[in-house]
Formats: sequence, structure tokens, C-alpha cells
Amino acid sequence: MSGHVLALSGGVGGAKLAAGLGAVLAPGRLTVAVNTGDDFEHLGLTICPDIDSVLYTMSGRNDRQRGWGLADETWRTMEQLRSLGEEDWFNLGDRDMATHIARSWRLRQGASLSDVTAHLARAMGIGHAVFPMSDDPVRTQVCTPGGWTDFQRWFVGEQCGPAVTAVRFAGTPGAAMAQGFAEALARPDLAAIVICPSNPYLSVDPVLAVDGVRAALGLRQVPCIAVSPLIGGRALKGPLSKLFSERGLAGTNLDIAAHYGALIDHIVIDRTDAKDADALRTGGLAVTLSETLMKSAEDQARLARAVLAAVGVEC
Amino acid sequence: MSGHVLALSGGVGGAKLAAGLGAVLAPGRLTVAVNTGDDFEHLGLTICPDIDSVLYTMSGRNDRQRGWGLADETWRTMEQLRSLGEEDWFNLGDRDMATHIARSWRLRQGASLSDVTAHLARAMGIGHAVFPMSDDPVRTQVCTPGGWTDFQRWFVGEQCGPAVTAVRFAGTPGAAMAQGFAEALARPDLAAIVICPSNPYLSVDPVLAVDGVRAALGLRQVPCIAVSPLIGGRALKGPLSKLFSERGLAGTNLDIAAHYGALIDHIVIDRTDAKDADALRTGGLAVTLSETLMKSAEDQARLARAVLAAVGVEC
Repeated sequence: MSGHVLALSGGVGGAKLAAGLGAVLAPGRLTVAVNTGDDFEHLGLTICPDIDSVLYTMSGRNDRQRGWGLADETWRTMEQLRSLGEEDWFNLGDRDMATHIARSWRLRQGASLSDVTAHLARAMGIGHAVFPMSDDPVRTQVCTPGGWTDFQRWFVGEQCGPAVTAVRFAGTPGAAMAQGFAEALARPDLAAIVICPSNPYLSVDPVLAVDGVRAALGLRQVPCIAVSPLIGGRALKGPLSKLFSERGLAGTNLDIAAHYGALIDHIVIDRTDAKDADALRTGGLAVTLSETLMKSAEDQARLARAVLAAVGVEC
Repeated sequence: MSGHVLALSGGVGGAKLAAGLGAVLAPGRLTVAVNTGDDFEHLGLTICPDIDSVLYTMSGRNDRQRGWGLADETWRTMEQLRSLGEEDWFNLGDRDMATHIARSWRLRQGASLSDVTAHLARAMGIGHAVFPMSDDPVRTQVCTPGGWTDFQRWFVGEQCGPAVTAVRFAGTPGAAMAQGFAEALARPDLAAIVICPSNPYLSVDPVLAVDGVRAALGLRQVPCIAVSPLIGGRALKGPLSKLFSERGLAGTNLDIAAHYGALIDHIVIDRTDAKDADALRTGGLAVTLSETLMKSAEDQARLARAVLAAVGVEC
């Protein structure tokens, strides 16, 4: 079948699959709802790391080497901010800075984060819809031995060092789905929901914590397919494997599947984790084995095609 | 005599003399009160062009070729902002951007413009006091055939094209002197007041329009010396000569002197305008001929020494 696809995405890994889906689906057939729990205010600017990763990757502007931010980047403003005694724990490139300045300026003028994100997506030539999960502020916080900490302070400032005993999403309940996200969920031509290979605890759970998302997914009439972020039993990057072990979990695809529970019908796992397939199937899930490593635009498109084929969506 | 010097300054030309005074006076002997009538909000950032010119020039970071902004500048953020569809009529360099981000951030946190300016001056290694003329917003506006226009829109956006029939300083009366400016005026060791070679109508008049400044200058017990911005009967750059002719004035040093009237005791004019000296003296002013062109730090220091010598201040 053809129809519309809704992808739920966090940052880097999720952004790559979103870009793959965007590349293989005709313009307008994809809506990406993006985690905003990592958003924060820094030096008076509103920074939305996952939205930016999705925009930059979908428009082919991302830096593949560094893994975040824009390609062909320089760091002149940041160097100067440092020399003026401003906080420098969160690095912002000169080209990237334009996104933050434009976004902050438009938000201050009264635009919603949805409006601003749609404007940026258009300006970057993205032919699909990209929405924040919510226009209401949601802020992911992690509980460490030192107490509750804002996500970016822990993730970037402390480089994920302190152990995490709990995660919360300040602003939920009470945060409404962005209108474009809710509308995509309600589309009569919706054909599939894709949970991108992002960190379940830190990148997907905030999306699921938005008012009505779990209920809508529970009532879905289309397949929901998750792509595992594990390759060879490990998260490619980021703190997922550390979070698993701090929870006393082995951290395999079975833990991913158990975490999503009845929200998903199907899971795509990496071929290197084929040993997990039988147990996942026994648990009631359809399983697709694929190469999930995405080093290039071709890899992204290949995985996107495999995901869509798994749920019978033509591209 | 030794003692303290108070300089009133606008942007480029004024900033150069302020830098010269800063170089020849021992640290702490100079206070510079800077025009903020040109300040404006752009893309959510508070831009203070004259304060920045003074800070950059006093710290030796200014671009002499371009005449404004920082040396060794790049324009990556601006290029990107342009590609995102943001207004690009006011150009901001990547290094310069850090000043605007830091200032805007600190102002939003509740710091006064005086606090922020002092912080920036310290961070740039400036050993003298630099203050805005006022912590209250004052905005210079020019009346053109198209109506009242904000200064930067006319100055940069319209490149001074439309004729100016009137100038006003929105926020005055009602804007109080910045505390550091008022304190400098009241110092018992104040030895001289210097009006830097800035545009009298657009850069010095806003300072004089701040509550109490004209009165304090009128009651001064120390000499007030103005340095003319004219060389060979013309303003070196900027719209001064155009403003003179729109007012039906010849635009000589006599017009400058008439404009300041009893506020000044002494005027420094360029040697190329020696023909004006007799008439100025007849009008009651002490006159010093000097080379007022400042192409280098040495020129700035030389003119500063001439100014201080003219009013008997040791350096």
C-alpha cells in the first residue's frame, strides 16, 4: 500500500533513518515528530538538538564525521564567547548558530516551535513535514547521585558520567501534541508508524510522554515498527548501553522490545543480533533482520526501504 | 594638572580618540560615556554599535580597513541566516556576534547595560571606564520624506539616502545618566571634558539629550574641549556633510562651534581648516590646530596628547 508514514525520532540515529525515509518516500508522504526533551536555553538562545539533527540530516547538511551539527563548520563565535568569559561547555558552530538565532528570534516574536520548525525545514529544502513532538516545553531530566540534572548538563556538560537512577520529563503530563503530529496520527491514509533507532529511555520516551501519544499508539490501526539502535548488542554511540547496565539489564533487543511492549508490532534488528530474533518472535513481534549501520545516504535509504517493506508500505 | 578625563563619544571617529586618550592616560584616569541612540534590536539581539566601536578600538581589536567591527572577521553565521530567510541588511561578523549574544544574554538576565559594558571592557582588557550614556533606552530617529525612521534603518538600511528634516531621541527626556557617567561628571578630580570627533547631530546630541547632561556641562568647573570631525571642511566619513547641506549650512567648523555654543570652551580643528581659526577665536573659543586624521594607534595617541595639552592636562 502507499499512504503516509509517521516517524518518531530523536537525534543522530533517528535523524539518519528519518533522512532515509524522506529520501525514499515522495515529498509530502512523511511526517517526522521529533523529541524536544533535550531542548534547552543557552546564552539566551533556544537550542533544539534533535530537531536540528533531523533538519540537518534530512537536508544533507549534517557533519557525518563529527556526528552532530553542520558540515563545513567553523567555531569563531564560540571562541570569542569563551574569551568574553561566557559558558563554553556546549559548543555551537558559526553556521549552526544561525539556526539558533533565527529560531530564538521567531519564538520571541510569538511563533510556535511548530511554525519555526516548518519555516526552517522549508528554508533547508526539506519536502516533508517535520514537527516538534509538542509546542509546550518538555525538559528531560536525569536523576544522578548529585540529584536531578537537566539533560544537556549531564549529556554534554558531564559527558554522561554520573549514573542515572531515574529519568523524568518535566512539563509532562500537560504537554499537548504539536498539531501537525496529532494530525499525522489521525490521517485516514496513515500506513505505518516508525520508531526510529534512537535511545528508548532518553529520546523516544519523551515523545511517548506527551499527552495522548501512548493512547493514540495503543489504538493504532496501522503497524508500528521500531528500529533497534543496537548493533552487535551495543548502542553505536551515546549512553544507552550504560543506562541498560545501570538498570541491571543485559541490554539486548529483548530489553528494547520489552520497553516498547504492546506499542510495537514489528522490530528491525541488525543482522549481527540475529540470535535475538527467535525470542522476539516468541514474544509476539514480527522481526526483520537488516544492516542497520548508516554511514552514508545510501545506507539510510536502504534501511528505510527495508523498514517500509517490512510493514508493506510501497515507496 | 593631572586628574580625571571624561570623554563623550559616538562611534568610529570618537572611538579612535577615546582609544588615543586611553593609551596616553594611566589606567583609571579616563571615563568614556558613549552614545546609545544608535542601539537597536536585531534578530533578537541588542546591538550597540557605538559602544562596540569604542570597546573594539580601545582594545585594539577594531578593523581599520573596514572602519567598523572586529579585525580578522568572518561572516559565516550571517551567510547562513541569509539562507534561512532572515533579514540581512545589517551585517554581523562571527566574532562580533559573540559580543551581541553575550550582551543580550546578560541584559535578559537582568544586568544593566552599564554592568554589561563594564564586563565586556574588562574581558577585552580595557583599563579605563566605559559607560553607556544611559541605562534607559534612547533611540535616535530621523525624519525623512517617508516619515520617522529608526536610525539604523536609515543609516545602514537606506545608506543615509533620504534627506533628514529633523532628528529626535525617543526616550528623552526621561533617560537618566548612567551612574558611572554621572559620577565621572561629579568627580572632584575631574580635569577636563572632551567631546570626541563624532557627528554633532547624530552621535553627540543624543548624549546631550540625556537628562541633566546639558545642565551639568553648563555648570562645569573644568574646560570642555571639542575635537572637530571635519578635515578640509568635510566630514571624513558618514552623513555629517549631507546633514549640514540639508540644513542649509555651509558646514564649516563655525557651524560645529555654533551647534555646541556655550557648552565648549575650546575646539581642536584640523590644520587644513586653519582659515576657520580667527572667526572661532572671535566667537570666544580657544582654538588648537592639529592633525586630526587618525589612521593608526600612533595618530590616535598624538591627537589625544594634543587635546590634553590644549586644556592643560598632563599625561
